[in-house]
Amino acid sequence: MSADDGLSFATTAECGRSGARCGRLRTPHGTVETPVFVPCATRGALKGITAEQAAATGAQMLLANTYHLFLQPGPEAVAARGGLHRFMNWPRPLLTDSGGFQIFSFGHGSVADEIKGRRKQRQSPAAVELTEEGAAFRSYVDGRRVFLSPEGAVEAQQRIGADLIVVLDECTPYHVDREYTARSMERSHRWGLRGLERFRETDDGRQGLYGIVQGGVYEDLRAESSAFVAGQPFFGQAIGGSLGSDPAQMEEVVAWSRAGLPRERPTHLLGIGGIRDLWRNAAHGIDSFDCVHPTRLARHGGALCVPGENGGQEHLNLRNARFRDDPRPLDERVPHPASREYSRAYLHYLVRAGESLGGQLLALHNLAFLAWMMERLRESIREGRFPEEAGNWTGA
Amino acid sequence: MSADDGLSFATTAECGRSGARCGRLRTPHGTVETPVFVPCATRGALKGITAEQAAATGAQMLLANTYHLFLQPGPEAVAARGGLHRFMNWPRPLLTDSGGFQIFSFGHGSVADEIKGRRKQRQSPAAVELTEEGAAFRSYVDGRRVFLSPEGAVEAQQRIGADLIVVLDECTPYHVDREYTARSMERSHRWGLRGLERFRETDDGRQGLYGIVQGGVYEDLRAESSAFVAGQPFFGQAIGGSLGSDPAQMEEVVAWSRAGLPRERPTHLLGIGGIRDLWRNAAHGIDSFDCVHPTRLARHGGALCVPGENGGQEHLNLRNARFRDDPRPLDERVPHPASREYSRAYLHYLVRAGESLGGQLLALHNLAFLAWMMERLRESIREGRFPEEAGNWTGA
Repeated sequence: MSADDGLSFATTAECGRSGARCGRLRTPHGTVETPVFVPCATRGALKGITAEQAAATGAQMLLANTYHLFLQPGPEAVAARGGLHRFMNWPRPLLTDSGGFQIFSFGHGSVADEIKGRRKQRQSPAAVELTEEGAAFRSYVDGRRVFLSPEGAVEAQQRIGADLIVVLDECTPYHVDREYTARSMERSHRWGLRGLERFRETDDGRQGLYGIVQGGVYEDLRAESSAFVAGQPFFGQAIGGSLGSDPAQMEEVVAWSRAGLPRERPTHLLGIGGIRDLWRNAAHGIDSFDCVHPTRLARHGGALCVPGENGGQEHLNLRNARFRDDPRPLDERVPHPASREYSRAYLHYLVRAGESLGGQLLALHNLAFLAWMMERLRESIREGRFPEEAGNWTGA
Repeated sequence: MSADDGLSFATTAECGRSGARCGRLRTPHGTVETPVFVPCATRGALKGITAEQAAATGAQMLLANTYHLFLQPGPEAVAARGGLHRFMNWPRPLLTDSGGFQIFSFGHGSVADEIKGRRKQRQSPAAVELTEEGAAFRSYVDGRRVFLSPEGAVEAQQRIGADLIVVLDECTPYHVDREYTARSMERSHRWGLRGLERFRETDDGRQGLYGIVQGGVYEDLRAESSAFVAGQPFFGQAIGGSLGSDPAQMEEVVAWSRAGLPRERPTHLLGIGGIRDLWRNAAHGIDSFDCVHPTRLARHGGALCVPGENGGQEHLNLRNARFRDDPRPLDERVPHPASREYSRAYLHYLVRAGESLGGQLLALHNLAFLAWMMERLRESIREGRFPEEAGNWTGA
């Protein structure tokens, strides 16, 4: 689609005994080695982490949320300030999501847990008015009614200026039935076509548009949606919507979705960032992942760790009294001061004392940990030992 | 007192036309060029700034509050974790204050404003029981009754292990009368002697003890207190207590206090950090300053600036709508990314959106700004043009 202009994707290594692969994703703002974890700078800022610090954790690309930037400061404002890279002072690659996830998760009165399948009580969906034309909802910033169409979502992302952008979709919760999921998927496909059409009107080759595979937890719908996305000239493809209620179902849904997708394009898995989830889904050829998990976990006192070395746990809870006198750093293998130079005792103290530095150091560690882990993951693919290495991390 | 062991102070340049001077303060953890501004790592942590970031702002030394560390995690805990430098991962010089300011400002039910002379309604002093023996008060951490004696304050600071430590004093509010101030000062002198005696029992030459000059806004009491401190073998001296109700009175009180103090020792002015205050009091030979102002100001959206270039204001309020479209960085002369690489428009957006990164970038800028300004101040002393340079900054 736009390799001439600096956007391209190429597979650089494959693991013969799984679907895992390494790739090189070139963008006008630099090259990303995949599989990659993409930290979430939700509103154009990582929580308490500067751009310089994000780069020092090894982050190759950041994701910002179209929904939030659409409401504040607005796409025009971001464009007037030189685009998102310059606005954020982040010169490396950027990805913006479609906005659909936030519109519908907020609109359904629920949040990520609901869409990802972890059941919570449903609340009124009245906050979002959904029509064929698009989605109308109320701004959390100033209360005004806002309307986002598939064309508008693409235009907003063109103004915001990330390297990789995503078409608007309806993000259905887990507990909707097959019929609703099918109708919603079909509308998302029509929205995808409308977004693609608008994108191509002004495409200058400096942004890559991703289609989204929907279809919930239904194998035939996932196959149908993948076939639709495969048939359209998207640069890349994202797997969205409900991924089921447990890791095994997630892997199944990802495998169904991935099966019909062109392998020459990069594939993104939306909103997934657990340690085992990253390894298990990389095995199905996922090239990029994003999730607020590492930074949110940090604000609650959690430090990512190697599960097999910590009783199967994916994180240490630094609030725990057992860290009160622990002089060890979080993990000396991770090449970052937050992981190597601060004692668990100090982090425990900071978290308990409510000092903001505690959450900040944990967030830096968590991002550095994932960057380091993903390099281990890529290395194991290049060296042909991905299944063994994945086993070490997933405890499988 | 301990030059052999790595603690010494020497004047390196003087300004013939004022009392301003440059000095070199050697400690076991490195050398500090004075006059210096010392950022406050109140509870052993700067708010949202890592040790690496603090060093990158140009901070030469940090101050931590004995009062807070005494209550949590406790001096024994800090000692068990290798002392404060190691605990905080800050290898450079550290100063701990006496604890008196917090005990009495919290005890009197008031805060810094009261002691510094900005009148607020007095509240019950019942929370602190003050006797000749020391101060009893209630811990804000767990509600237990705590007792701090002059000996205990020195012991706590010996365990905590900062390079520079301060004797316990009663920090009287502005609106107490001369008689109370005199009696309180005399008790602080007796406390000073008790602290000094305990200090000398175990002094290994790796910490320098500062006496404190009290005496409120009364010239004769300040002279008496300075004479007392001058007559005792302290390494350095701090000017504490009420400094009056306006900048002119502060300068007067500082001049009275400074007049009787030995010039071969370093002199610290407690709790002062305004731009004009730094220049005006450096003119009276103050060698070091500390204040929460730059980091607290940042959390409220304020960025330090050169007053003469900004209508006399010492800071820009980034919440102000006039910064919404301002593409300029805060100040390109300040050698730090927070000052040079982020637009005012982005900072305005972050502050308005309530993103923690806004306050963090402003805090980094404010610390870098003061480090840069103090280097300009030292340079002007070395080059014999301090009065002119001070005039540029104070608008005098």
